Amino acid sequence: MIPAGGAGTRLWPLSRASRPKFLLDLDGSGRSLIQQTWDRLVDLIPPERIHVVTGAAHADAIRAQLPDLTNLLVEPSPRDSMPAIGLAAAIIGATDPDAIIGSFAADHVIDDQVSFAEAIGQAVAVAATGLITTIGITPVGPSTAFGYIESGEHLTIDDAGSARAVSRFVEKPDAATAATYVASGVHSWNGGMFVTRTDVLLGHLARLQPRLHDGLAAIATAWATDDRQQVLDEVWPTLTKIAIDHAIAEPVSLEGGMAVVPGAFDWNDVGDYAALQDVGGVSSSDTVWVDADGLAIADDGTTIAVVGLRDVVVVRTSDALLVTTRAHAQQVKDVVSQLKDRGRADVV
Amino acid sequence: MIPAGGAGTRLWPLSRASRPKFLLDLDGSGRSLIQQTWDRLVDLIPPERIHVVTGAAHADAIRAQLPDLTNLLVEPSPRDSMPAIGLAAAIIGATDPDAIIGSFAADHVIDDQVSFAEAIGQAVAVAATGLITTIGITPVGPSTAFGYIESGEHLTIDDAGSARAVSRFVEKPDAATAATYVASGVHSWNGGMFVTRTDVLLGHLARLQPRLHDGLAAIATAWATDDRQQVLDEVWPTLTKIAIDHAIAEPVSLEGGMAVVPGAFDWNDVGDYAALQDVGGVSSSDTVWVDADGLAIADDGTTIAVVGLRDVVVVRTSDALLVTTRAHAQQVKDVVSQLKDRGRADVV
Repeated sequence: MIPAGGAGTRLWPLSRASRPKFLLDLDGSGRSLIQQTWDRLVDLIPPERIHVVTGAAHADAIRAQLPDLTNLLVEPSPRDSMPAIGLAAAIIGATDPDAIIGSFAADHVIDDQVSFAEAIGQAVAVAATGLITTIGITPVGPSTAFGYIESGEHLTIDDAGSARAVSRFVEKPDAATAATYVASGVHSWNGGMFVTRTDVLLGHLARLQPRLHDGLAAIATAWATDDRQQVLDEVWPTLTKIAIDHAIAEPVSLEGGMAVVPGAFDWNDVGDYAALQDVGGVSSSDTVWVDADGLAIADDGTTIAVVGLRDVVVVRTSDALLVTTRAHAQQVKDVVSQLKDRGRADVV
Repeated sequence: MIPAGGAGTRLWPLSRASRPKFLLDLDGSGRSLIQQTWDRLVDLIPPERIHVVTGAAHADAIRAQLPDLTNLLVEPSPRDSMPAIGLAAAIIGATDPDAIIGSFAADHVIDDQVSFAEAIGQAVAVAATGLITTIGITPVGPSTAFGYIESGEHLTIDDAGSARAVSRFVEKPDAATAATYVASGVHSWNGGMFVTRTDVLLGHLARLQPRLHDGLAAIATAWATDDRQQVLDEVWPTLTKIAIDHAIAEPVSLEGGMAVVPGAFDWNDVGDYAALQDVGGVSSSDTVWVDADGLAIADDGTTIAVVGLRDVVVVRTSDALLVTTRAHAQQVKDVVSQLKDRGRADVV
């Protein structure tokens, strides 16, 4: 399943509430981020087994971008990732309770499909044993932009020689802590990927978030009936708004119920313009650089000139313009906050 | 007379070959720079005595901006400032040989009209004695963007108590030299203003640039006849392309033929974006600044956001975008050079 939500405010003004990051071709590959995610998964399983969960505002755009998608689950309103992933799990579990399901963000870039497939293969083997399994991205530097997974003892599971228990999940660290994590050899980046047996996930949910579980079960029961939309519209707004990390991953990891499989592939969450540059985001070809370098994008085809600035980030759309530096890439979300405060819904 | 030429390449992309600096309202006053120049002069003399010299490309725009202008002299092609100013002088001199004429750039900003008028009054008194007289702008700092005038002995002329001889003109200095100039008390900025008797100017020209003088005289003789355009088109392309500084001011100053009167008014040549900021150029009101400051102009009304950059200069037009810093303002001309080299006449 592919939860497709999140506006990507650090990529304003390319990314907008009405045109979120996952719908954009940010790396010049010719495929949007959700199309790339689809391509990775359809290489592993048939298209009719892929489920996308998204908001009503983006349903049409996703149908247009993914013509072979048959299972599009449309949330009546955003309730964070646990209801989104739980909805897909409950619907799949209603007909196939011990199906192994995986959740993969719609807006990440992964470069090495062979290595990705290998990691998923191991994760499926681990998930079959009843552990919720995540992919721990091998860090390529002491990033402070991601949460980390701390690995525990090695597990002995057929076809999953690299699997380890998860000791705990840790939040985005400061730079010094990140450096110790990378040096430790037991910390990996949390790329937000989960593979689990459906009954295992729903069992944890019933125990840890019983109201949320029961609401999703009610929706799943009605899903194959004429009452689907009515029940969805009634129950959905009552569901607890919570991320899967807090609802499941963190508490279950402390109980020893989670495993991690290393992912040695190149992974990038395209979380800001520094990440976009790393993943191959290229400047408009007619940009004039005078004693200057960085990333300069004009999605309206106009000419950009930069004089005397290093590592600059310039992004021009038809209605807005961002000027910042690579080092300030994470602060771009503050622009969106300020524009919202000013009532400028037209440009966020 | 107002010579109206020069593209103002350091103010790209606001200023263009097709829309030069003097046609723009750069300081938010509601009047373009040439309109402000007109306003200053029409306060001193009747409109029918004001002559504007410009290229064919800008004649219509000037007529539209200056509806009371009756003497618009259109150059068939640009030949630098001496032919432009000399043309006006020759035409005026044909009917009024000892008229006192002044030349004032079309694209400067002067704030104190009383002080300006006072300086011009003294300059007219000096010019009547046969000296070519310039206004020496009192420096407010060690600028390296202007040439300087070095004053010599005090002159004793009625109604011109501040007049001095010009010892010499010096080119744009480096920063250290500029500091010694400002400390010297005898150096002032060369604002490019000249006041002179017509016969004096034409006499120097006949001596120093005889071919240029004779060409201008031929045009002036034909001016009141039906042959005006034919003679202009024939003779103009043969005129020596030279600035008045090199043709007249520098050689005549070394002969003791030039005087300087101090101008204590605020003067700004709006030569680059740093100067524009000093003269009151204001950022678009809806600009979002996050840990940032500077000048941000969107002449297409779009929203600009700047994150983490100090003293930045951002200028957006419908077809181009400049990003630089105050300190690099002079280098903006290199952008225009590069665009010309790339054959991008559409955006220069």
